[in-house]
Amino acid sequence: MRVSKLFTRTSKTAPADEVAKNAQLLIRAGYVHKEMAGVYAYLPLGLRVVEKIKQIVREEMDAIDSNELIMTGLQRKDVWEKTGRWSDEVVDIWFKTKLQDETELGLGWSHEEPIVEMLKAHIRSYKDLPVSLYQFQTKLRNELRAKSGIMRGREFVMKDMYSFHGSAEELEAYYQRTIDAYKRVYERLGLSDDTYVTFASGGSFTQFSHEFQTICDAGEDVIYLHREKNIAINEEVIDDAVKELGISRDELEKVKTAEVGNIFNFGSQKTDEMGLKFTSQDGQQSSIYMGSYGIGITRVMGVLVEKFADESGIVWPEAVAPYQVYLATIGDVAEQADALYDELRNKGIEVLYDDRDTRPGEKFADADLLGIPHRVVLSPKLIEQGSFEYKMRTETESNSLTKDELFATLSAA
Amino acid sequence: MRVSKLFTRTSKTAPADEVAKNAQLLIRAGYVHKEMAGVYAYLPLGLRVVEKIKQIVREEMDAIDSNELIMTGLQRKDVWEKTGRWSDEVVDIWFKTKLQDETELGLGWSHEEPIVEMLKAHIRSYKDLPVSLYQFQTKLRNELRAKSGIMRGREFVMKDMYSFHGSAEELEAYYQRTIDAYKRVYERLGLSDDTYVTFASGGSFTQFSHEFQTICDAGEDVIYLHREKNIAINEEVIDDAVKELGISRDELEKVKTAEVGNIFNFGSQKTDEMGLKFTSQDGQQSSIYMGSYGIGITRVMGVLVEKFADESGIVWPEAVAPYQVYLATIGDVAEQADALYDELRNKGIEVLYDDRDTRPGEKFADADLLGIPHRVVLSPKLIEQGSFEYKMRTETESNSLTKDELFATLSAA
Repeated sequence: MRVSKLFTRTSKTAPADEVAKNAQLLIRAGYVHKEMAGVYAYLPLGLRVVEKIKQIVREEMDAIDSNELIMTGLQRKDVWEKTGRWSDEVVDIWFKTKLQDETELGLGWSHEEPIVEMLKAHIRSYKDLPVSLYQFQTKLRNELRAKSGIMRGREFVMKDMYSFHGSAEELEAYYQRTIDAYKRVYERLGLSDDTYVTFASGGSFTQFSHEFQTICDAGEDVIYLHREKNIAINEEVIDDAVKELGISRDELEKVKTAEVGNIFNFGSQKTDEMGLKFTSQDGQQSSIYMGSYGIGITRVMGVLVEKFADESGIVWPEAVAPYQVYLATIGDVAEQADALYDELRNKGIEVLYDDRDTRPGEKFADADLLGIPHRVVLSPKLIEQGSFEYKMRTETESNSLTKDELFATLSAA
Repeated sequence: MRVSKLFTRTSKTAPADEVAKNAQLLIRAGYVHKEMAGVYAYLPLGLRVVEKIKQIVREEMDAIDSNELIMTGLQRKDVWEKTGRWSDEVVDIWFKTKLQDETELGLGWSHEEPIVEMLKAHIRSYKDLPVSLYQFQTKLRNELRAKSGIMRGREFVMKDMYSFHGSAEELEAYYQRTIDAYKRVYERLGLSDDTYVTFASGGSFTQFSHEFQTICDAGEDVIYLHREKNIAINEEVIDDAVKELGISRDELEKVKTAEVGNIFNFGSQKTDEMGLKFTSQDGQQSSIYMGSYGIGITRVMGVLVEKFADESGIVWPEAVAPYQVYLATIGDVAEQADALYDELRNKGIEVLYDDRDTRPGEKFADADLLGIPHRVVLSPKLIEQGSFEYKMRTETESNSLTKDELFATLSAA
């Protein structure tokens, strides 16, 4: 992509009402546009990051035999009344609206109930189980406050997955398989060192659910952590958990975290309430066991900004950067830069090519603000020397590389 | 994909309240789930078709230098008040909702106003123009009636593109370029023979807008057509258009059509109303000229079903079929079928592999209902003969092919 063709521009300032570092940087760099508090549009560079995160999650969900679909934003009242969750007293973050004939509708903040309802048309017998399905859905949640940028949106993208099984044991096995899949996701996102499977509050079926919590100063959660034993407990269940695990609270470190995923074992409560059953091998109508598994895609994007940004701007992990290379020109080297741009792209390397007629300092500042992992500079002097100036976003010093060295470096990244 | 791993099942019946052929077939085949009238979830096979249509549109929009982004569903009242379109008297298909503090919000039925508003942060001077951007957005429209299945949804996916230019002439040139891009889209979708660029009602800036209308009995529009001269006129502007074009109404054929795209020249009306300006080369604050270009992605999917379906079910054009090949087994040939499945996929051919232990007649009926372009059958007898039974969805007779012939046929498709 040529910067001259990209309509977004970087800015030295963010809107005065924006207090979250992630949103400030993302707005300044032109990744997102703030529509209102908690509601952000994703501009071309931002959409690329969202899609890269989604693709990593998609590959890992596909790998555990889950089927992608897309449910609807508009929701029926009767479906949610079956579990008592239509009520604004029970669920206080509904957005609701109406058809022209005054029929009340909800706007999807979760899709557990409609997924169960939909499956009634598709699950009959034990032969139809297990089922796992997921979606990337834009959820709407009427949060009272929305001050954490894209880490807590009123409108945000979530991967939600649901699995259905003929027995509690089969659900438990899939639940563990999903934990492993989630670990691979956070590994690929560059978050695994600081992300912990954390005990959190359960429901009527299990004592605990599990959250994936990433250490992050901007997070809204507090967990108690034992790094060596790899034990993490959300403060909401600390008393029960230390008892259950037989550990002392004194061994644990209190840290601020952001929830980047959560998984929940519903048992057969919700499917029983909604009347989703199956005919077992011996011909009985039997209960179906359900798990629910979420990853906040845009929240993860916000966490990546919060964790890795430095004083010059965003620092994207390689796997989610919108482009791998920022190619900047100094002086009139368009011919050589165009050729290098084509050559890199032909090798499958994604390049943001700053072909603008602006000061080198401005180009370097933008490269840093945008957080592109690798910066390559071309100038008349460098061309004369047959070399390329190369710098990683995470380093301050640049190196002079030959063309072979440059391609070897970028291909290895 | 193995049919045994796909959670959806086909059905001989559709919901009693579903009157549209496209939705009846898509529900029966397990492509969509009806949430309520005009609101459909896209199940795994349906989502694949949606994504294939989107990808064709994406490639053609990228080819005319447009940037993909994603705006928000939640909309601010003040943005729409600037053009008078917040009012329910002016726009009668708004869904509206409220924040907890009673602030009114709209749900995006279009994104013209928020796009213009957003661009105020990014367009300053003539150097920033032209700009073209597009999104695939889930639009919500509070239609009084919704009886056309996915051809007129209350919730549906639309590609909407917007372009911004420094002069009326530049906009006009881009408008023509977009017409050519749209023609390529409909060509790739298999609709070009029956799709016409049609004069439709304009606005204050131009006498006519242009619609892309596809001949379709289930369509909601009527156009007057001259096939040889390639002239098409929406009946809403027939009087003005025959006068303008100097043709006689008697030469024209009246046909039912579905609108599959529309493009609109706003001139500088909307940008002036909203205060989006640029500084021209001579330092003047100048008007920006805007075009708006839509393609209803899910509507196009419905039109494809309506146009090509036969008495046995859906018939997908090659380019949008969820899978290219339906591989069905008769008898115990799992080992050979597994091997063929792998071999086809290794060649990049998308295969829906019916590995179920069910009657051949059921498998063939599903292959037809699902509308997969190519059907390949394996049986013990065929294996003994070293041959494969091959049938195109659009033909009634099958052929016996050698493996080389089979791969040659499928690779050429």
